[in-house]
Amino acid sequence: MEERKLPLVVVTNLTNISYLTGFHGSAGIALIDPEEATLLVDPRYTLQARDQAAGVEVIEEKGRLVDAAGKLARKKKPKTAGYEDSDLTCQQFDSLKMSSGPRVRWKPLGEMIEELRAVKGPEEIEAIRKACQLTCEVLEEVVPFLRPGARESDLAAEVEYRVRLKGGDRTAFDTIVASGPRAALPHAHASEKVLNRSELVIFDLGAILAAYAADMTRTFYLGEPPRLVRRIYEAVREAQAEAVEALRAGARAGDVDAAARNALARRGLAKYFTHSTGHGVGLEIHERPRLGKGEKTRLAVGSVVTAEPGVYMEGFGGVRVEDTVLIGPEGPEILTPAPKDRWILA
Amino acid sequence: MEERKLPLVVVTNLTNISYLTGFHGSAGIALIDPEEATLLVDPRYTLQARDQAAGVEVIEEKGRLVDAAGKLARKKKPKTAGYEDSDLTCQQFDSLKMSSGPRVRWKPLGEMIEELRAVKGPEEIEAIRKACQLTCEVLEEVVPFLRPGARESDLAAEVEYRVRLKGGDRTAFDTIVASGPRAALPHAHASEKVLNRSELVIFDLGAILAAYAADMTRTFYLGEPPRLVRRIYEAVREAQAEAVEALRAGARAGDVDAAARNALARRGLAKYFTHSTGHGVGLEIHERPRLGKGEKTRLAVGSVVTAEPGVYMEGFGGVRVEDTVLIGPEGPEILTPAPKDRWILA
Repeated sequence: MEERKLPLVVVTNLTNISYLTGFHGSAGIALIDPEEATLLVDPRYTLQARDQAAGVEVIEEKGRLVDAAGKLARKKKPKTAGYEDSDLTCQQFDSLKMSSGPRVRWKPLGEMIEELRAVKGPEEIEAIRKACQLTCEVLEEVVPFLRPGARESDLAAEVEYRVRLKGGDRTAFDTIVASGPRAALPHAHASEKVLNRSELVIFDLGAILAAYAADMTRTFYLGEPPRLVRRIYEAVREAQAEAVEALRAGARAGDVDAAARNALARRGLAKYFTHSTGHGVGLEIHERPRLGKGEKTRLAVGSVVTAEPGVYMEGFGGVRVEDTVLIGPEGPEILTPAPKDRWILA
Repeated sequence: MEERKLPLVVVTNLTNISYLTGFHGSAGIALIDPEEATLLVDPRYTLQARDQAAGVEVIEEKGRLVDAAGKLARKKKPKTAGYEDSDLTCQQFDSLKMSSGPRVRWKPLGEMIEELRAVKGPEEIEAIRKACQLTCEVLEEVVPFLRPGARESDLAAEVEYRVRLKGGDRTAFDTIVASGPRAALPHAHASEKVLNRSELVIFDLGAILAAYAADMTRTFYLGEPPRLVRRIYEAVREAQAEAVEALRAGARAGDVDAAARNALARRGLAKYFTHSTGHGVGLEIHERPRLGKGEKTRLAVGSVVTAEPGVYMEGFGGVRVEDTVLIGPEGPEILTPAPKDRWILA
């Protein structure tokens, strides 16, 4: 705020509010100035906000929060104030301007807070670590169900169920179980399809625990894999290991992507790798930094990202291997250490 | 569009896109003019969009969708075009204006499409009916688990699991299981708390099936209820029946709320009913019409809404009874017919 010469910032993005104040409710607006943080909530959330947002003044509002935020901004008399232009709708911004009066000059914040979120603090890292552990435990429990005859959507239901029984908030995204030719679709959700013998199965899952997410993919083969399948699996495994190895403070995000892509190119498989290598993980399942082709962002100690190259061949199937990885001061640390060599389920 | 003299409308709200085109993906922008509907999607969704959006031209876009929408709008040369000001962020609207050039005059749509969605077509009603049936089946399966010693969050996990095993997409919201004093919090989610003997349990659940939601609450008592609990339960039951009875085409939304509130007032319980009586249900779990105090909207045949009065007493507990109800040509039809007299679980 100092850097940007903003004496007041109005935060409307709920994930950013959760990050800045600790309040995890589904409605609220935060006003932050150098002296204090104020959180406006409706009566449903008063108790929860007082409980979760330590050191933040909580004000209960019965009317529209955005109008109350405007009025409070007017009272504080800042010359300029920041707003989240990537979150606030046109309608909400009109209301905010109206209720704050003509004296406040509003400036778009862009993704200022999202950029702060790209580097995690020790408590955040601990939370992600636990979500990753829970995800690994769930995978271990569900692997025995990966058998010919099992329905993809039932396997996804098992994941959801076990995440909750183990105290997770929920899964961080719709669990992907993509078998046979469906494994060629990188974002296929679990369908009614039944697993068959001699099929690849991509299994992509993650839990949310105490608001923080995990993300992991393992690929399995049901039966004795033919040589081509083995070759593809080994290539992806190697590409993934090289991406992880490249996750070091100071490296460019695009270098990590290149590491995975070059490893696949050596085996002639680069053209089958149709998405980027990874993304940040935290309060959201997809956040900064993005590990895509040519991305120039420098990686920093404390970022948590996925490394997830894949090979997808239409009509044939696909392989993806993914870990959530912490960029530590000494180098990368895999937070999802579920085995990758146990992929042939005979 | 004709009424508003808008030769082009740009739709960005994903639920509205789903409503207008049938495409249920997580990213896309639709352009609608009197001749045709166009859907812009990124490469992940091309196949899905072509499959789901019958009669709609699907264009695959590799760049930012909002820029592509602006460029397409510019090509169509409308004098004015509508945009969803309650959905588009300030940042997106700036991009849209920039890429559409200075010749297009943009007009805010407000909630035009949300208003259309308040009245359901026959296929939508059928979809909601099925989601409600599934929800009732899940309740029947989970009622036997409602016993002293069961953990609230495990009961919620059972609901999620069974919704999916029965072919539902997911639950429409975090299942509420609120027992004992927690039943006094209308929006308490399932916690680590264990159910005890001689406690009220509010159980609020709903499935999404084929994109449409259901919403239902039943309240239970574990053991032999004391007279005060019986009186409260009967009062809420009666208030709910009167709200359902008031759900007729031509009535004002506020009259339905008054019906429930008056019934509770006759028993001296009105002040414990701290939320509104109901809300529309469809592609979203909360949509129009809202059945709140003094709401003037006239109800129409084909609307599907909840009727859900409750009584909440701090430190003591609460009771809520809720159905999803169709406003039919002959009057209200309850779509969630799970029993309300089986509330004492001895």
